[in-house]
Amino acid sequence: MAAARWISLVSVSLNVVFLAGVVLVIARRGGWAYLQERSRPQPSREAVIFQSPYYRHRQSQFEKLPVDSSSILFLGDSITDEGEWSDWFPGATIHNRGISADTTSGVLRRLPDLLETPPQAIFLMIGINDLIFLERSPDQVLSYYQQILTLIQQRAPQTQVYVQSVLPVSDAVFPGINPKILQFNQSIAALAEELDYRYVNLHPLCVVNSQLDGACTADGLHLNGEGYARWAEYLRPFIAAIVAK
Amino acid sequence: MAAARWISLVSVSLNVVFLAGVVLVIARRGGWAYLQERSRPQPSREAVIFQSPYYRHRQSQFEKLPVDSSSILFLGDSITDEGEWSDWFPGATIHNRGISADTTSGVLRRLPDLLETPPQAIFLMIGINDLIFLERSPDQVLSYYQQILTLIQQRAPQTQVYVQSVLPVSDAVFPGINPKILQFNQSIAALAEELDYRYVNLHPLCVVNSQLDGACTADGLHLNGEGYARWAEYLRPFIAAIVAK
Repeated sequence: MAAARWISLVSVSLNVVFLAGVVLVIARRGGWAYLQERSRPQPSREAVIFQSPYYRHRQSQFEKLPVDSSSILFLGDSITDEGEWSDWFPGATIHNRGISADTTSGVLRRLPDLLETPPQAIFLMIGINDLIFLERSPDQVLSYYQQILTLIQQRAPQTQVYVQSVLPVSDAVFPGINPKILQFNQSIAALAEELDYRYVNLHPLCVVNSQLDGACTADGLHLNGEGYARWAEYLRPFIAAIVAK
Repeated sequence: MAAARWISLVSVSLNVVFLAGVVLVIARRGGWAYLQERSRPQPSREAVIFQSPYYRHRQSQFEKLPVDSSSILFLGDSITDEGEWSDWFPGATIHNRGISADTTSGVLRRLPDLLETPPQAIFLMIGINDLIFLERSPDQVLSYYQQILTLIQQRAPQTQVYVQSVLPVSDAVFPGINPKILQFNQSIAALAEELDYRYVNLHPLCVVNSQLDGACTADGLHLNGEGYARWAEYLRPFIAAIVAK
């Protein structure tokens, strides 16, 4: 019986320690408010993107910055957002309309605003966040992409669209994504031809062993200066032709 | 004694449940690797910033984008980074050299590269991340700021520097920071005068009740389109004067 008492004492003490630990961790994370937040139904991943302050800030800045019929828009996600396009192409009227974390459905949502005055050209790169973070299939992403191009063709028939391939990623960081990218790029290349838009195959510029060249990235997804330099060199003749018009 | 046994049974069962819970949480966070990671000495907050892929990507892109003696640099942290300066000032040769999360010591580190060819003008806004995330005192931040301005004066004596005030933040999100901002702004205004640089007081443009105007932000720190519009309007005469030279 002495042993039973001893076990009981140790066990109860351990429980008190455990409980105190749990309470402490919860308290440090914000206490009751944290528990309420955790138990609330979570918004969809895409709603989280669109509602983020960053996304809303970018959108509201774009609303204040009108484009005109000689404008060249770079439209897409973080990979477009992080490029200093007006530095890469001095002399051209470039507007960066990338928003980090954006998706095909996000671009579709903000397209009507961007086309109010149709620009001269749009360089579009979008879809990787759909594949990675929203876990959409290439076919699902394609259906949004098709809506994007169709909307541009309806509302801005004079605008030249450059359908840029999605770039490869690192297999170690994003396993299983590269084959989906290849499939998706084939589909948008076909779509571009169908709609008489130019397909720009950037994929080979930064690829080694079927994945993103380590010389172009520090995180397996986004680009460093070398990545942007290769991209910009490839686009230079297209930009020159647009500006010359 | 039956009661003691019962207590013992319940308590030991609770021990098992708690232990299982802890093991489960650790396993879900990565198991042994997670514990090792947690117990390793953490790099400084500033090292985390400088080593982030985003920071390295931006820096390496800037290295590939030379400036010249007619360039206007916007230099700073996320608040500069997120501004579409070449859209706000068409006709001027603007280069965005902001990096999200940057600090006074970060700007000091990358300044030699940026001054290789001295630009015509620099619009500098830096210091808020020092105050908020590195928890530096206004005087500590000032000492870095002084080194920044002194280095510019040494290496690029012809470059005009516009010392922009740090903007207010929201008290609810960043309690206790606004008084430090006021103190810091007073110091850099005095420093600018001492070094014969122009102090640009943006602080009043987006302030309501001594904190960041809710009309200018969605997160109490960064700016939306309204915030950038007020800022750009205020700078317009300065930019026009620079371009006219």
